[in-house]
Amino acid sequence: MSVDSNHAELFENLRIELRSGCVVLAVLAELRREHYGYTLRKVLADSGIEIEENTLYPMLRRLEKQGLLQSEWREEDKRKKRFYHLSVSGKQILGDLFGEWDALHGALNRIRKGQTR
Amino acid sequence: MSVDSNHAELFENLRIELRSGCVVLAVLAELRREHYGYTLRKVLADSGIEIEENTLYPMLRRLEKQGLLQSEWREEDKRKKRFYHLSVSGKQILGDLFGEWDALHGALNRIRKGQTR
Repeated sequence: MSVDSNHAELFENLRIELRSGCVVLAVLAELRREHYGYTLRKVLADSGIEIEENTLYPMLRRLEKQGLLQSEWREEDKRKKRFYHLSVSGKQILGDLFGEWDALHGALNRIRKGQTR
Repeated sequence: MSVDSNHAELFENLRIELRSGCVVLAVLAELRREHYGYTLRKVLADSGIEIEENTLYPMLRRLEKQGLLQSEWREEDKRKKRFYHLSVSGKQILGDLFGEWDALHGALNRIRKGQTR
């Protein structure tokens, strides 16, 4: 493997690690209002958070199983779609996670500006 | 398992996922100046990013092996210590990761404020 491709692969791995926690936060936050998979994915992509279908759909099922989301099947435009929204428990956890996110953002900003010296 | 302990465990898992990518970013950013393990851990904790020793030390070895850090053993206060700092390759990746971080932060802010409607 060349130095350049090694560098690119390293960056990609670190980028995925940085994104993974944020993506769950974005999904929970956007589901304060109801979406089905397609519109959720589109809205998140338009906001700057791209998620593959094969990442998003298992994540939605997992978050529902954990009690953070609720869903129901409904017909829209003559097609049955599964609509998701945040549960009461999900709302609490979302608030706590945003608290954690703000703390992390503040800490990283201090470190980035070298205010730790 | 009670609902409360389940809720707490769920939050803890999501919190860890959110933190893990940020912690690597914090370590790389702080190592723009030289540190040995103890002072690095202290400075990061003071900034708001706590890392266990048994997380930090393997991470430093991994990042050095990947070429993002360089280290040297030196004597200080009559004890040999391993001092780490960011390599040239690490500096490039750090810049790219901060770019990614800024994009994620912007995206999450838009979603949080509901500007996706």
